[in-house]
This record gives sequence, C-alpha cells and structure tokens, in this order.
Amino acid sequence: MHTFIPEEPGRGSVVNLRHESEILKGNPLGDPHGRDLFVYLPPGYHESDERYPVVHCLTGFTGRGRMLLNDQAFTPDLAGRMDRLIAAGRVRPMILAMPDCFTWYGGAQYINSTATGNYEDYLTQEVVPLVDANFRTVADRDSRAVMGKSSGGYGALIMALRHADLFGLVCSTAGDCYFEYCYMQDVSKALRAIDGDPIRFMKKFWETEKKGKNDFPAVNFIGMSACYSPNGKAFDLPFDLDTGEIRRDVLDRWLEHDPVRLVERHVEGLKSLRLLFIDAGSRDEFALDLGARILSKRLKEHDIPHIHEEFDDGHFNISYRQDRSLELISEHLP
Amino acid sequence: MHTFIPEEPGRGSVVNLRHESEILKGNPLGDPHGRDLFVYLPPGYHESDERYPVVHCLTGFTGRGRMLLNDQAFTPDLAGRMDRLIAAGRVRPMILAMPDCFTWYGGAQYINSTATGNYEDYLTQEVVPLVDANFRTVADRDSRAVMGKSSGGYGALIMALRHADLFGLVCSTAGDCYFEYCYMQDVSKALRAIDGDPIRFMKKFWETEKKGKNDFPAVNFIGMSACYSPNGKAFDLPFDLDTGEIRRDVLDRWLEHDPVRLVERHVEGLKSLRLLFIDAGSRDEFALDLGARILSKRLKEHDIPHIHEEFDDGHFNISYRQDRSLELISEHLP
Amino acid sequence: MHTFIPEEPGRGSVVNLRHESEILKGNPLGDPHGRDLFVYLPPGYHESDERYPVVHCLTGFTGRGRMLLNDQAFTPDLAGRMDRLIAAGRVRPMILAMPDCFTWYGGAQYINSTATGNYEDYLTQEVVPLVDANFRTVADRDSRAVMGKSSGGYGALIMALRHADLFGLVCSTAGDCYFEYCYMQDVSKALRAIDGDPIRFMKKFWETEKKGKNDFPAVNFIGMSACYSPNGKAFDLPFDLDTGEIRRDVLDRWLEHDPVRLVERHVEGLKSLRLLFIDAGSRDEFALDLGARILSKRLKEHDIPHIHEEFDDGHFNISYRQDRSLELISEHLP
Amino acid sequence: MHTFIPEEPGRGSVVNLRHESEILKGNPLGDPHGRDLFVYLPPGYHESDERYPVVHCLTGFTGRGRMLLNDQAFTPDLAGRMDRLIAAGRVRPMILAMPDCFTWYGGAQYINSTATGNYEDYLTQEVVPLVDANFRTVADRDSRAVMGKSSGGYGALIMALRHADLFGLVCSTAGDCYFEYCYMQDVSKALRAIDGDPIRFMKKFWETEKKGKNDFPAVNFIGMSACYSPNGKAFDLPFDLDTGEIRRDVLDRWLEHDPVRLVERHVEGLKSLRLLFIDAGSRDEFALDLGARILSKRLKEHDIPHIHEEFDDGHFNISYRQDRSLELISEHLP
Repeated sequence: MHTFIPEEPGRGSVVNLRHESEILKGNPLGDPHGRDLFVYLPPGYHESDERYPVVHCLTGFTGRGRMLLNDQAFTPDLAGRMDRLIAAGRVRPMILAMPDCFTWYGGAQYINSTATGNYEDYLTQEVVPLVDANFRTVADRDSRAVMGKSSGGYGALIMALRHADLFGLVCSTAGDCYFEYCYMQDVSKALRAIDGDPIRFMKKFWETEKKGKNDFPAVNFIGMSACYSPNGKAFDLPFDLDTGEIRRDVLDRWLEHDPVRLVERHVEGLKSLRLLFIDAGSRDEFALDLGARILSKRLKEHDIPHIHEEFDDGHFNISYRQDRSLELISEHLP
Repeated sequence: MHTFIPEEPGRGSVVNLRHESEILKGNPLGDPHGRDLFVYLPPGYHESDERYPVVHCLTGFTGRGRMLLNDQAFTPDLAGRMDRLIAAGRVRPMILAMPDCFTWYGGAQYINSTATGNYEDYLTQEVVPLVDANFRTVADRDSRAVMGKSSGGYGALIMALRHADLFGLVCSTAGDCYFEYCYMQDVSKALRAIDGDPIRFMKKFWETEKKGKNDFPAVNFIGMSACYSPNGKAFDLPFDLDTGEIRRDVLDRWLEHDPVRLVERHVEGLKSLRLLFIDAGSRDEFALDLGARILSKRLKEHDIPHIHEEFDDGHFNISYRQDRSLELISEHLP
Repeated sequence: MHTFIPEEPGRGSVVNLRHESEILKGNPLGDPHGRDLFVYLPPGYHESDERYPVVHCLTGFTGRGRMLLNDQAFTPDLAGRMDRLIAAGRVRPMILAMPDCFTWYGGAQYINSTATGNYEDYLTQEVVPLVDANFRTVADRDSRAVMGKSSGGYGALIMALRHADLFGLVCSTAGDCYFEYCYMQDVSKALRAIDGDPIRFMKKFWETEKKGKNDFPAVNFIGMSACYSPNGKAFDLPFDLDTGEIRRDVLDRWLEHDPVRLVERHVEGLKSLRLLFIDAGSRDEFALDLGARILSKRLKEHDIPHIHEEFDDGHFNISYRQDRSLELISEHLP
Repeated sequence: MHTFIPEEPGRGSVVNLRHESEILKGNPLGDPHGRDLFVYLPPGYHESDERYPVVHCLTGFTGRGRMLLNDQAFTPDLAGRMDRLIAAGRVRPMILAMPDCFTWYGGAQYINSTATGNYEDYLTQEVVPLVDANFRTVADRDSRAVMGKSSGGYGALIMALRHADLFGLVCSTAGDCYFEYCYMQDVSKALRAIDGDPIRFMKKFWETEKKGKNDFPAVNFIGMSACYSPNGKAFDLPFDLDTGEIRRDVLDRWLEHDPVRLVERHVEGLKSLRLLFIDAGSRDEFALDLGARILSKRLKEHDIPHIHEEFDDGHFNISYRQDRSLELISEHLP
C-alpha cells in the first residue's frame, strides 16, 4: 500500500491499494489485472481506531479512480473537496474508495461482459471486500454508499438495481439513462471515424496521440457495444456500418441495460435503499436530464422513494455537484 | 403579374404571379391564401415563342420561394445562378417556379394536413397548372422537374413518391429522411423552449424578434408534428412534454411519412422517373447523409434507378449544390 | 424606375432608381457604375403630394442596399419593418433610401479611396441629390437622416463628421470604432488565408463559391486596407505578410480614419446635429461596444450632445435595433 | 521527500521534494511558501550512481508542476511520456523537475514582481540548486535544460534571455510573444467579467466553483498585469475599466517584458546556448505562431542560432509536442 498523498494537519491522506485481481485475470482484452485502488482516509484516521462509512466513487467513461485526484487550479480534487466539506462540518468523516474499471475500449460500465471482462463482479466481489479488509470501514450496506457521474452514475444505478444488499446509499449524477437519447445522437460522427472497421479504428486511436473530432463518439459507441451487445469476445454495433441504419435487434439488447427499463425487475431492492439520489444538469448535452426525469417517473410509478434534482448546467465540469451527493450520503447514514 | 427583376441583356427576368389559392382558402391556421409565386424566365423568353421545360424549386423549412432570390455578396441568387449556368452552356434555358408553402408553424412539408392545410394539393393542383397556364412551358411530366433542399428535398421526394405522373425528374439535396436521426436529436432543447405549451410558445416566438437558442428546435418539432401527426386542427408531439419520453404511437405516425418507409408502396411510379437524384453533405448536421444512404439502399433493393452522391460539406450554405441538380435535370430532359 | 415591391393597402412600396453614376465611372476596380438605388415610399405616398423626411440606410461590409429587402421567415425586411412602425404610430411616414456602395473588395466604407473609388462623393454628391430630385423629400439637412450598422454605422459617423451640412440626424449601430480592437483580432486567420498574395487570394475567393473559414477575416483586412491605406490603385496591409508583425506606419494611416480620432477635428459640425445616436451590443464580437463607449467619451470631452446606448446582444442578427434608430430619427425631426 | 509514483520495472519514479522557500516567504499575496517540487527520476536511477542531465519543465498560466502528472485516458502524463521515449531510445535518461510557481492570480510568468513575489529568483536561486543538491544531476548549464508551453514557454524564454549561464538548452512551445496579439484580443470579455473591480472579481472567482465564460480572460489580464505592470503590491491594468481604452503607458510597461523586444539586450547570452528551440501550432488561438515567427525573425537579425518549427494544431491539447522538445534536448546535450 503506497501513500499517494501524505496526511497533513486538517487534511486527509490518500493511499493506493494496488492489488492483483483474480476476476480480471485473463480478461478478453488483455487489460492489466494489476489494478490501482486509490482510497481517501479522512483527517484523524491514523490517530484513531474509529470505523468510518465508505463511499465508492465511480468515474465516467474513459475515467479511472486516479483521475478523481487530478490537480486543477481552481477546483479541488476529490480529496481536497472532502477535506473542505469535513472541515466545514457539512459532511461526516468518511472513507472514499476510487476503483479503476478502465479498459482498452475506454470503460466497462461496471457490468460483466464477455467482450471486456467481469467488472460488476470485480467491483462487488473484490473491491468492496478489499476496502473493508484493509481499512476501518463500517462494513455494512447501511454505511456503504456508491456515487458517480455519467457512466459512473450508471454504475451507481446498476449497484442500486442489482446490489442493494451491498450498497445502501446510491447517488447518480447525469447517469446514463434512456439510451434512445443519450447515445443515439452521434451515429453519423461515429460512423465516419470508424470507417467500416471498429478494431482497426481502436488500434489507430491508441497509436495516434492527436485525436480527431469524431473519435470520441466512435469510442463511445464501441465501448458501449462491448458492454451492452457483446458477441463472444467481439461485439455488435447498433447501427449498420455502411448506411448508419439502426440494427433494431442490437439496439434491443442495449435497451435491456437501460436503467429506466430495469426498474420494474428490481423494485424490492430499490425500495430497501436508505438513499437513492439522481440529478442532472438541465442543459445536459446528452439529454441525461431527460433520462433522469424518465427514471424518476418510473420510480414514482413503483412507489420507490428517491430524490430527484436538476441544476442549471451541462454535462461537463460539474464536479462541484459531488458536494451535494456527499452531503446527502452523510445525512442519510445511520 | 408583377415584374420583380426586369430582363437585362444576357440575364433572365423574374415575375411574381401573385394569385388567390382556392385550396388554401380557409386553411386551419388562418394563413393568407393570397400567395406569391416567383417565376424565373430565361434570357430570350420575351423575344421568342419557344416553350421551355420547367423546374419547381422547393425551399426548406422556414423558407418560401422569394428567399431563393435573396441578395448575397458572394453567392448568386437562384436567378443569377441560372443566368450563369445558361451562359456557360452547362444548363439549357428553363423556367424555374418558386412557390410559397410557408405557414404559421414555419412550413408544410408539401403534404396535406388537417393542422396546416392541403399544401400537397396546392402544389400539384394549383401551382403546377398555374405555371403551365401563364408561361410557355412544355406542359408534360417529362419536361417538368422538382428540386429542393432539406424540407424542400423532402417535398421533392414526396412528388417522386406520389406524383410521378406530374414530375418526371426529381432532385433532393439533404431531403428529410430516416426520421429517427434527422429529427430526434434535439428533443431536450425543444422541450426546454416549449416549456409545456406549444401554442403559447409559438405566439411568443412570433412576437419576439430576438430568438432564443432553443427556439428553432422547438419550432421544428412543432412544425413537423403539425404535418406528420395532426390531431384535427391541433397536433400531437412525439414526446412527453414533462419528461421528454418518446410517445411511440405518435412517432409511428411520423414514420409513415418517412421516405425510406414509403418507397415500397410506390415502386412503379419511382421506376418511371427520368431522373431521381439524391445527395447530401457527408457532414450533414442532421445526419441526412445517412438518410440519403438508407434511402438509396431501399431504392436499390427495389431496383429503382437513381443517382446518389455525397459531397464534403454540412447542411448549411450549400446552395452551390443547386448547380449539380440543375445540370442533371438539363441532361435528363427529352 | 422599376417597382420592386408594389404598394398594397397599409403597406409602402419599394422602387429601384437604377442610374449611371458619373463619379463611379472609371473606378479603379472596374466595378459597375450602373447602380441600384432601392427606395422605400411610405403608404399613401402615391395618393398624396406631401413631402417626407428621408433616411439613408447604409449596409455593413459585404452589403448593399437590396440586402435590406431580403426575405426572412421571422424577421421583417426593412420595408416591412417600416410599415409596421408606421402602422403602430411609432414612426412618422418617411422615405428610406438604400444605396449600393459594394466593391470587388466587399465594400468602400463610404469614403473616397484611390484603390476603390470615390464612394463618399458618390453618396453625398449623387445619391442624395438623386433621391431629392426623384421623390417628394423634404430636401433639407434637418429632415435628412443617415443610419447604418457595422460598416454602415461607420459610414453614418463619417457623414456626421464631414457632412453635417447634408445630414442633420445620424444613427450608428455597432459602427466601426477604435480600430485597435475591432480589426486587429483576426490577423493570424487573415494571414493564413491570404497566404502571401492578397490579389491572388481575392481572385480565388471570387471564383470559389464555398468559402474557407479564414476567408472573411482576409477579405475584411483587404477591404479595409483598400479604404484606409490605399497606395495608388493598390493598398498596404497593416501587417507583414510573413510574420504578421504590425506595420506601424500603415496602421497609423488606418487610425486617421478612426471616428474616435476624428472627433476633435469636426466638433462644430457634430454639435450642429439634431440627433447623434450611437449604440452597440454589450457582447459585440468585434468589441464595438467598447468602440462606442470610447467614442461617447470623446464626444463628452468636447461637449457634443449625443445619445449612447448598449443592448444585451452581439454583433449579428440585430436588425431589430433598426426600430430604435428609426424611432429616434422620427422623434428628432422638426 | 515523498515518493509520489514508486518505481516499477522499466518505469521511472516521481518524488515530491516538498520544501520551504526563503524567497517566497512573505510574498505579497500571502501565497504559501511551502512548495511542492515534483521530480521524475528515470528508470535505473535508484540502482546506479550515474549523474543525469536535468530538464526543468514549466507549466502554463494557471498551472503548477503536479498537473504535468495528471492522469488521462489516452495521453500519457509527463512521467509516462518520458518512460516511453527512453524505452524507445528516442531520449536519453534524464531527470525532470516540475516546479510550482502558482499564485493567487493564477501564475507568476517566472519573473519577479512586487505584486506577486520573486518567482524568477525562486526558480533560479532555489529550485535549481535544490534539484542539484538532492539528485544526481550533472550540475552544469550545458546539461541543464528548461522547457515549457504557453506561459511555461515564456518562462523558458526568460531563462534563455537572462539566465543563459544557468540553462544551456531552452525549448519554448507557444510561449507568450508579441503581446499586441496574444493578450489584447479579449479585452471586452475581461472588462465585462471584472466589472470595475479586479480584486472583488478575484475574490468572487475563488469563491465560486462554477466559472463564467468571461472569467478566464479576466484572470489572464489580472495575472499578467500583476506580473508586467505591478504598482507596489497592486497593479495597473492596460485598459480603462469603463471604456476599455488602451492605457498606452501601462501597455508600454508590458511590452518591456515581451521576448521579441528583449532579444536585442541579451544577444550574447542567447548566442551562447547549446539549443534554442521555439515552436507553435499554426492555428494557435492566441496567435502565438505569429509570436514565434516574429521572435525567430528578431533572432535571425541578430545571428542567434535557433530552431523554429510550426505544427498543424492550435494552442490546446498539444502535450504530444513535449516529445519534440525532449528529443531535441537529448540530442543537443554534450
């Protein structure tokens, strides 16, 4: 365990619990199974024998835990943010875990896939126990939260849907929802960049440091296909590579992963949560504000308690919204 | 008949055949039934007794015939373009008709609707005969063409599909096709601007000269709904006004107007055309290049002869592509 | 004299007083000396023998009079706007003259130049008398106004500065002022497009219908150089074509044409005006809001009465501000 | 000394030489004088007793050393980049030092100022000796390089101009040059954001996590004024806060810091350099490609050897150009 940021008076520390994952060993992409796991320990952690609630913080597509600690001039990293919130008495001291579920395709959506690997298992069966085993957590679903933005919000929703036994508090900011809108707006850009061969595209993408303007839509479609519509170790794209026409059968496989469609299968678990919080910017470039509205409507239809908020912003540069999730988690702990 | 642009040596003239439409009289929106009909007459028209082929030129959404004659510094208006093409020997002398199918909702898609009026009838039963009656046209489907861009291209395709007896040559540039892509990308912007009440929005839109940035997506959805999913004199939007969720039943009514879905019902007419030309910019902001590809694929599946081209540009400022349509029409005349 | 828009009940008419200019004959660019002069005559003009005040309306760079009559869906052209203002009682019936001072370089800034022609003379010695001779104007400086936007606003300011004997009322919206800001921000784009040879660039620019994104900054610098720093029939650019370094001697010649520097030479004339109105959008992309502020400060320093306003907008799509100029002119007439 | 990134096989390590600066103690802004100093040590460093050349890597405005180690999905951080270049044999093993010269105004331009502190002294009199004292560097100007981008490139040029005795190799990518262009394009945005009171603006800027779109131009002008035109502990802006008019006397103080104007005073030092490399993207948004051209011209006029390159890109996301600087440094070492 390596100390990434040493403790200073009034500030927490960050350690990297680098480990070998059994579950990711032999993953289909040959991605490393040695993984970083950055963990924030609140001020005072090392001087006490107290146990702390833990929040698993999931990054968006193309992200991994360490990025939450990137240094910026006028915005605190997640550790600095937490220091500030604790110092201001807005949030209780808590442990934050920042796992790495990055893949060669840019991410894993925190679900199992034959094309990327079993990242849902990795998170629930390895990361959670690892954190509990190595740090003084309150190792209890009522004191274990998960939060994230964008695909990290999607991951949090997946935990709410399928792992309410593990995570009692869930916050999704601009989480991927209502796939018709959030993904399908950039088919033509993706098509142009992919140019008939997704794997050739990915190889070139990794080799070329200067990215083209249509490259991210392309990676996004490829990554989501690898997660939602794998085909053995390969995957199917939801559109025809020549004309762009929607492949309805593939899109239907995607929709089976859409939170707004999954709610009805997991009503009891969802109802058991101490906190279910969803928010999005009212100008979200991927219409995830609409995704959140539709999800909220589904939740209401099944009488599932939750908090739904919109804020006046878009999809990017909204890390200040982490304050709101962390405060709500802190409030809803036992 | 008013002379809008008088003839000069080597240049054609433009007249306005202002008339009262019987078909538009009493239209549901109270739009005027007195309509302008601008007509370009080629150089030499007034000195000869020759008959000329005629091209009906349809404008896009929020357009009307006169806009094709707007003056710009470095781009000729349609009359000047035609003068130039004729002088260069690239196009035969032809008459161009520029009808006005504008409505309070921004347009009519050149189809009949209980919410806007019977603009398909107006075009085919009034405008075409009016032009033939007032000018020395070759009043024959083999010498009568229709062309247009965007919603004007859509209108041209509708003529190809349902009025191949009237129009023997059809050119659609970036015509509305494959509605899943071309319309559904801006739901969230439209939703914000409409703010729960489409008619209140439209009134305010007309009253406020300075438009908001989400206003055009809103007008676009309202206009298309009035054309594709009218409900008596009102209309249904294809999404829920609170959450943005797709109203599948309404969207299905839209899709019945999608050229890529209409092809199979009109195979014989389409096969009878002397010219069917579709093109689009390969960076079209509404993915109409994909629309054109999918349409071309459908046409091929039914062995319908056509020409399909892509050019390196987007959706806007592409009037230079009129050259290509006009040249192809000229070439394919008897 | 050709009737461009015939009179209708409650609406004015527009005629084109096409004429041969003596002053523009033999201009250095070989631009036509036969010029259009569109003139709006208010409702009732033809049925009365009344005399009317006249407003000369100057277009911006790359504009000419007829463009003020371009048809748009949701914004009236200048004639329609005037009809509306008169009908609402907000403006008195007035004649509007819309001259054409376009050149091969995109414009003339309404000043004399050995590189473009004597457009200041053309406007003051030919257009003004021509309008007075052909229409029932009150041919008096107290009833003669000039207004314009952007380079048209600059032209109006030039009239205020040097021709207060001809024009008693002057309105400049976002008129070119404080050249350090309004012109010098796009040197690098212009440099790239010009690529070492301004005349070769201009020829190619005219020949190629599809313009490049750096082309307009290039034309703008070329056009302004032809007006502000002519060198016989040629001109000097204010920057080095290899490095972009400012040519201070040339820029100094430009600055001699900057309204903020001309004020002190024309104090008496400026004081004699019935109306001097300057405004600009507070987000003007060429910083012309600052230009207007600096001009206003100079005017105040010399005790020159004027009205200075800012409005919440940028430089483009602000024709609705014509209302304000027309109303102020109407108000300040004798 | 804290290990930030531990050594792994084939990869270098990064340590943080956190220290107390004597020179920054009591700086006028009350910025901390305890500073991080991140240092990359090449693979094998810990197993050998070899001495290595050292490159000081300067960040742009609003940057500090640690940001060079931020984690990104598809772009290596500076340590990873160096690992890769060494492994590929493109660059010799070298030490990289990443100092922190950040201030409350966003930066210090690596020069001394009564308004920010003596950062030029800090870099040359503290950072350089500290690195040499703590690591096995070749502590010789012929083996000591400095490189940077944007304001970091400016800092590198300042070292070339005034500290050629310390740094024998200098690389500036898009370094601030020809201040007329690189700074003066955004006065109006800055003016709006500053709204009459720069200090009140800065306080609000620091307190508000969500930044406004005009905030960065404002911070930029404030930061540069604090560096180039300090006035005791305060500073003078180069424009009037009401009208935006240029304050010529202040701008002249700025220009005294412009590399293109400093060249002539430091010809001998510049000539003594082993390497002077300047490059910029040919579409640099701040026209720093022109800045580099003008600088190169000045260097040529004084027969100062240097390498000047342009690459096809803008100002942002160009860290891949670090490869070129590092390779050139490696090549020009003794």
